[in-house]
Amino acid sequence: MFYHVQSLINEIVADEPDPSAANALQEGLGGQFGEMRTMMQYLFQSFNFRGDAVPYLDLIQGVGVEEISHVELITKTISRLLDGSPEYNGKKFEAPGKGKASLGMAKEQQNPHHYIVGAQSALPVDAAGNPWNGSWVHNHGNLVLDLMDNLVLEATGRLQKCRIYQMSENKTLRATVSFLIVRDEAHQAAFAKALETLGVDWGKVLPIPKFDSSQFPEVKRLLDAGIHREQYHFRLDSSQMEKIFSGSAPLNDGTELVTMKEPRESYPIPMMPERPEQFAPGLDPELQDLADAFSEFKDNLLAPKKKLAKSIKKK
Amino acid sequence: MFYHVQSLINEIVADEPDPSAANALQEGLGGQFGEMRTMMQYLFQSFNFRGDAVPYLDLIQGVGVEEISHVELITKTISRLLDGSPEYNGKKFEAPGKGKASLGMAKEQQNPHHYIVGAQSALPVDAAGNPWNGSWVHNHGNLVLDLMDNLVLEATGRLQKCRIYQMSENKTLRATVSFLIVRDEAHQAAFAKALETLGVDWGKVLPIPKFDSSQFPEVKRLLDAGIHREQYHFRLDSSQMEKIFSGSAPLNDGTELVTMKEPRESYPIPMMPERPEQFAPGLDPELQDLADAFSEFKDNLLAPKKKLAKSIKKK
Amino acid sequence: MFYHVQSLINEIVADEPDPSAANALQEGLGGQFGEMRTMMQYLFQSFNFRGDAVPYLDLIQGVGVEEISHVELITKTISRLLDGSPEYNGKKFEAPGKGKASLGMAKEQQNPHHYIVGAQSALPVDAAGNPWNGSWVHNHGNLVLDLMDNLVLEATGRLQKCRIYQMSENKTLRATVSFLIVRDEAHQAAFAKALETLGVDWGKVLPIPKFDSSQFPEVKRLLDAGIHREQYHFRLDSSQMEKIFSGSAPLNDGTELVTMKEPRESYPIPMMPERPEQFAPGLDPELQDLADAFSEFKDNLLAPKKKLAKSIKKK
Amino acid sequence: MFYHVQSLINEIVADEPDPSAANALQEGLGGQFGEMRTMMQYLFQSFNFRGDAVPYLDLIQGVGVEEISHVELITKTISRLLDGSPEYNGKKFEAPGKGKASLGMAKEQQNPHHYIVGAQSALPVDAAGNPWNGSWVHNHGNLVLDLMDNLVLEATGRLQKCRIYQMSENKTLRATVSFLIVRDEAHQAAFAKALETLGVDWGKVLPIPKFDSSQFPEVKRLLDAGIHREQYHFRLDSSQMEKIFSGSAPLNDGTELVTMKEPRESYPIPMMPERPEQFAPGLDPELQDLADAFSEFKDNLLAPKKKLAKSIKKK
Amino acid sequence: MFYHVQSLINEIVADEPDPSAANALQEGLGGQFGEMRTMMQYLFQSFNFRGDAVPYLDLIQGVGVEEISHVELITKTISRLLDGSPEYNGKKFEAPGKGKASLGMAKEQQNPHHYIVGAQSALPVDAAGNPWNGSWVHNHGNLVLDLMDNLVLEATGRLQKCRIYQMSENKTLRATVSFLIVRDEAHQAAFAKALETLGVDWGKVLPIPKFDSSQFPEVKRLLDAGIHREQYHFRLDSSQMEKIFSGSAPLNDGTELVTMKEPRESYPIPMMPERPEQFAPGLDPELQDLADAFSEFKDNLLAPKKKLAKSIKKK
Amino acid sequence: MFYHVQSLINEIVADEPDPSAANALQEGLGGQFGEMRTMMQYLFQSFNFRGDAVPYLDLIQGVGVEEISHVELITKTISRLLDGSPEYNGKKFEAPGKGKASLGMAKEQQNPHHYIVGAQSALPVDAAGNPWNGSWVHNHGNLVLDLMDNLVLEATGRLQKCRIYQMSENKTLRATVSFLIVRDEAHQAAFAKALETLGVDWGKVLPIPKFDSSQFPEVKRLLDAGIHREQYHFRLDSSQMEKIFSGSAPLNDGTELVTMKEPRESYPIPMMPERPEQFAPGLDPELQDLADAFSEFKDNLLAPKKKLAKSIKKK
Repeated sequence: MFYHVQSLINEIVADEPDPSAANALQEGLGGQFGEMRTMMQYLFQSFNFRGDAVPYLDLIQGVGVEEISHVELITKTISRLLDGSPEYNGKKFEAPGKGKASLGMAKEQQNPHHYIVGAQSALPVDAAGNPWNGSWVHNHGNLVLDLMDNLVLEATGRLQKCRIYQMSENKTLRATVSFLIVRDEAHQAAFAKALETLGVDWGKVLPIPKFDSSQFPEVKRLLDAGIHREQYHFRLDSSQMEKIFSGSAPLNDGTELVTMKEPRESYPIPMMPERPEQFAPGLDPELQDLADAFSEFKDNLLAPKKKLAKSIKKK
Repeated sequence: MFYHVQSLINEIVADEPDPSAANALQEGLGGQFGEMRTMMQYLFQSFNFRGDAVPYLDLIQGVGVEEISHVELITKTISRLLDGSPEYNGKKFEAPGKGKASLGMAKEQQNPHHYIVGAQSALPVDAAGNPWNGSWVHNHGNLVLDLMDNLVLEATGRLQKCRIYQMSENKTLRATVSFLIVRDEAHQAAFAKALETLGVDWGKVLPIPKFDSSQFPEVKRLLDAGIHREQYHFRLDSSQMEKIFSGSAPLNDGTELVTMKEPRESYPIPMMPERPEQFAPGLDPELQDLADAFSEFKDNLLAPKKKLAKSIKKK
Repeated sequence: MFYHVQSLINEIVADEPDPSAANALQEGLGGQFGEMRTMMQYLFQSFNFRGDAVPYLDLIQGVGVEEISHVELITKTISRLLDGSPEYNGKKFEAPGKGKASLGMAKEQQNPHHYIVGAQSALPVDAAGNPWNGSWVHNHGNLVLDLMDNLVLEATGRLQKCRIYQMSENKTLRATVSFLIVRDEAHQAAFAKALETLGVDWGKVLPIPKFDSSQFPEVKRLLDAGIHREQYHFRLDSSQMEKIFSGSAPLNDGTELVTMKEPRESYPIPMMPERPEQFAPGLDPELQDLADAFSEFKDNLLAPKKKLAKSIKKK
Repeated sequence: MFYHVQSLINEIVADEPDPSAANALQEGLGGQFGEMRTMMQYLFQSFNFRGDAVPYLDLIQGVGVEEISHVELITKTISRLLDGSPEYNGKKFEAPGKGKASLGMAKEQQNPHHYIVGAQSALPVDAAGNPWNGSWVHNHGNLVLDLMDNLVLEATGRLQKCRIYQMSENKTLRATVSFLIVRDEAHQAAFAKALETLGVDWGKVLPIPKFDSSQFPEVKRLLDAGIHREQYHFRLDSSQMEKIFSGSAPLNDGTELVTMKEPRESYPIPMMPERPEQFAPGLDPELQDLADAFSEFKDNLLAPKKKLAKSIKKK
Repeated sequence: MFYHVQSLINEIVADEPDPSAANALQEGLGGQFGEMRTMMQYLFQSFNFRGDAVPYLDLIQGVGVEEISHVELITKTISRLLDGSPEYNGKKFEAPGKGKASLGMAKEQQNPHHYIVGAQSALPVDAAGNPWNGSWVHNHGNLVLDLMDNLVLEATGRLQKCRIYQMSENKTLRATVSFLIVRDEAHQAAFAKALETLGVDWGKVLPIPKFDSSQFPEVKRLLDAGIHREQYHFRLDSSQMEKIFSGSAPLNDGTELVTMKEPRESYPIPMMPERPEQFAPGLDPELQDLADAFSEFKDNLLAPKKKLAKSIKKK
Repeated sequence: MFYHVQSLINEIVADEPDPSAANALQEGLGGQFGEMRTMMQYLFQSFNFRGDAVPYLDLIQGVGVEEISHVELITKTISRLLDGSPEYNGKKFEAPGKGKASLGMAKEQQNPHHYIVGAQSALPVDAAGNPWNGSWVHNHGNLVLDLMDNLVLEATGRLQKCRIYQMSENKTLRATVSFLIVRDEAHQAAFAKALETLGVDWGKVLPIPKFDSSQFPEVKRLLDAGIHREQYHFRLDSSQMEKIFSGSAPLNDGTELVTMKEPRESYPIPMMPERPEQFAPGLDPELQDLADAFSEFKDNLLAPKKKLAKSIKKK
């Protein structure tokens, strides 16, 4: 059973809108090696787990739960990169119908769906506009094979994100991508370590791609903070993940792995403003009044004192 | 950010394997109107939410978090229906290679992937074998439209599950399907109520399909327990869901809606046994020893006292 | 602009339900070479037609309009073959929830979607359950190539239907399939003749497949009636189709081609009964009363005299 | 059975080519909520209709027939926006092979298929280049659910077209998009009204999106002409659509609904010129002579007098 | 550049038709981890290879060329398993149209496309009827990652084929599947060895699945012949594959790897008979005469003496 | 069984990078009418061939083998057009992480997958980014129909390539496209001739499109060399292709067809350099040393004398 807190696993850093950066980042969300796949692959593997090797189950599932928070983070990042992009390009929107094309830039974008189908927000598709596909979820049932498949998946995720990092200097993009690069290192460590317990010695090949990611300054800050050697189990009861995720990392970086319940910090979720040109959320004054009245009425019923206090404060 | 406990939102009831029932139930997991879609649709809508109508956001997101637990439940149910099905059909498996076809029944099944690709376990596909597709996630950005789309989705989910209920008397299938029918009623109530706050009067058309689901005995038990009038927010911080989900239900059943943090009860997750004919998990004695030794060693390091106690107990 | 009459282009012949025959026939509806493709291919080719060779345009478009009626016919046929199939298999349905699996046969069918997604009715998919796909519509813009592509399409349609004919003796299936075999001969003649006007001599290769389809008795009756040498333009204004579709057929059968406005006969559309086990249409007494009351009220408003007469007659 | 007249349901307004506007408009043709879907969804629902509630059948089917004409209109509009676009961009085409790249702009477009696969004409794909997919056709069999699904579909269609309207000031695009916005209002009214007859009171939520579309000047002209309160049944026999589509509209605009056989006006279909750079239609002089000769010969046979008159006139 | 000889890489062993075994085997041809994928993945990786590490290129490409011959072998095997299946089931075909359903069994099969679309022959689809998809081809460009991805691919191929082996005792199926199991072991060795050269020590985890495949008697015969320790480069010029594929195998089986130009033996390709019920090849006597006459005539032109000898022999 | 030589069937002509030309050319590789389809379609048709009309089999299969070499050629061409494109656009790459976006142009491209998923190299997708799909392979089993389908396929291939030729003056693109135009003419001749042997007289309609391709100068050079009238069987044993592919061509160009074993010339395969910004191949110095050491060691073992010679030479 799953629970939620309304916070993010990493910060959304403010910068200008950048719709083509948003489109590139879609690969990290809805691509064949993106966060929707990692989330679904690890959840399916853990729901369908056979046998009693509980530490392996807890490792796979713990990473899977983290991936839901990655989907949340990357979705927010894409939406932030898209948000306000029509206005930002010098075509400020006032109200629909004034005869000018307030979304004129939209039809020139790589994926016009960001404006026609979504309301300047993330979609469950990849950077070429193909929808996410369930056939990408690999769950072979064989433990060694599933672990190796997961390692390939994390390695590809890191590779693609290192490429995306180089595609834009936008800070909103780079903050999120850097965090995911570091977490993909941790997840490579997790699955490589699990295979190490079964006798594999990885020598010098990890991490994939084999390069010093601290060359990316945003990544360096996270490495310095040790984010790459932590793994969180996100379990409200308890987890045996630590039996595997501890000791020295197999990534040739000399670190010691640490299992924790959850990250040391979490971050506020920025509210997204209304976008009248998208009719989003599209509550006209009449509907807004209804919504407010209802909310008001319920406030009175549910928490009369709080409401009272609020009325007083208004005065 | 998301958290997990290793329990189920409803009970897995024991019965015989039934692979074609498992295949029908795939529609409820990976079908166009199944739980993977509801989960993704509500999560995307809440991650991309615009404006400050927080109670609506909390309602959509709370239902979305519940759907992850539904994916967990339905996956476990399908796997249970498949588990041991080759043996159950009178073709007991001993060891690969003895010249007899221990998975002989597999090639006659509707979706042989349950045995070739998965290891007698659930897949992210529908009942016709088509993989789940991201284009099914509808997130229009317009609040009224998103709520109506969600109502259509829940109504279709309930309709299809009422049809699936009639396809098999298997208790494992019916227990899960009945629970989902009841929860789909609660979710219809949730989205219909949200539209009611904006001025819609549903008259007599709800729930869809319009019939007394207490005719299904397993459903009746859950209705008697009031499961259909509860909605859980699963928030570790707090939620404004209650502002909408309270008062009288719009489903013509005279109930009062109640918002709670989580269900009153949760249920243990049954372990799935090894299946040597599927090479799942496929740890041969050599690998098993390695896994055990590592686990043992770590136990000693991590919790030397517990380990000691265990050694003593063994004696 | 398009118009409709509520009649069928061929008769639905009564026979027992046969769900696997219905599934095979799905290929003729939603398959890569089925009626949805022919309809869309010819409509796109005619909407996108370049140049002033109007007789060719009118020929392609006229066949395209006929294909919409084929979609109507084949949809009705599939639904007829599915309709009542659960009961027919000895599992008579009474009412949902009585503890027995009234749709028990559904989960054993090749495409359970006929019962879970549809209500014992046709789907826009092929015989392997794959949804119809727009990439199958070929519209090259080059007239000679489009005509050759259409000829290949009609030849494949006829080939597949001749194979389907042999898959079942069910009269409902064979009546429709035979009609489509004969019409595919006419359409082969149409596109082959158009290429003949541009200089091709087909020699002995047509029709494809090259065999005497009058060996199929239901086909023979239609050939005897001359249905294979007629082409209809279905135009309420006028058409130049006749300039091409006249003279001797290029199909090695010695017939003379005739262009007509529409078929000599059309056929009534059988009503499909309610299916409570599918919740289709699912108007409970309460909703039915509303529908009836409204309909009654409108009858009074719109045609008071007719209503009056009806009331009198009831007495 | 279906019929055709060679006229359009709305006018194609002349303006410059605009290939990215054409691409955006593809969403309205081949997108998940475009005209190909509405057409197929309503036709399937009416072909598979169960029970004797004929006015509801006639309403759904009547709208479905109109959608075929919308597919015709939007296809023509897209082709018009593409037609001549290479030349328009300052790269006038003379003849293939002169060493210059006469289609050079094509490879920079969002969907190069408009030039490689089609001949500067519409494709059955969406604005992101994904082909139309049959799984988008929803036909649940349950009348209330089908009507609600249709309402969501029309609402989404209108929402997306209001967004597309803002993406280009091109008159060809805006004329067609505005007509479709107005017709989507009529169709929202149709399905909302049908649900009203079953007891739903829509309050203030319709139309979706909730805004005054008369802010778009091209839309205003159509609203002033009352196009949004008419529904056409396009039946050559007769229809009971009027029983539902009459009385006050549920769209908060104070109009009275009117059922008519067909629109008051129809519009000529502009011929599309040859495009030698696309080899479309690609009849070289040799083939053109054959086509002409054949057509001439047939003219003589079919209408000797008209031909004679023509010969005389030539002198 | 590629060349061909009309022989098979392994023998087609005769046995009865078995259409559901054929369908299961489709996974090995057109499935996500089947031979079409391995072939395309390795060819793309070698065509897109960067850098001068030629032995790695030659290894990947050599395996890729072998996979084309695997596609040939598995296609032939599937077709053999389907060939004559309608007759085999006791419904002997005489000629189309005699009123009996000579392909009656076809509509009951899991994938009716084997009879409707193909002519009792293999299709480029998987065991659930989904067409092969290009997104399954992984070519990351990073050598270590590509090698690991290939190892996962071969491991999954072997796992699935070991499962399929157990699904049928049919000798035609088992002969081919056993050969592919053994070759997948060789290919696991190839990619594991390549990673070993870069420093990985695989310990005990290989092969995947970890079990003694000599338990399958048909596999044992091939292992005894050493087929699992050979790799062929199929190069008409020369190859550096041997630099990697030599020395001890990393599969825990104590063998020495050997690189050879091609397999020691090759096998004749059985001719497939005509199937009149499928209209395949469908040359009626008229067309057959034309084909023969042409062939005869050409024989005379091309090889007059041989022809002469043949004529004399006839007398 | 298949063999390979490390040479190309045509030359890669050097020119500047051009990523949008590369994307257009993807249609010729992974498009519905591209080389991956022709290759797979002809291989499937020949593997599934029925009956004893061996010259037809040898013709289809011979063309199929050539198509593998076309896939090789077009893949290399696309990669060449992409290779170095980021640097070429004025954003020279030094090393990842220096704070500048070295792949900045990538996110503006039509298919960012060329940089995120691939390493500046070809993908198995079409020009709109859709992955290649197995349903495009047509293998009807009926010989006349398969030949006509193949003719339509070759005609469409030539049509699309003639359009692509006009999209760019890049010499790398035009050299390959021109070669493919000429070979598609040869293949049109092959299938048209095969149908001619069965009695079809093509008159004036071929080739499709009907125009003098010698207007393209690069094409003219190849026509002058006679490449369009040759067909290669690529068989290491022997072939009866010549029985069909000889005599006068049916393409209205007055040529005589000639069957040969292989092309007169073949061409070297250019090596692709490392791309550090893509981490391709990504062997860091540590891994490179391992690879070199291993290779060195093996050289010593395998060819001690050659190695010795090399050492001496170094001095």
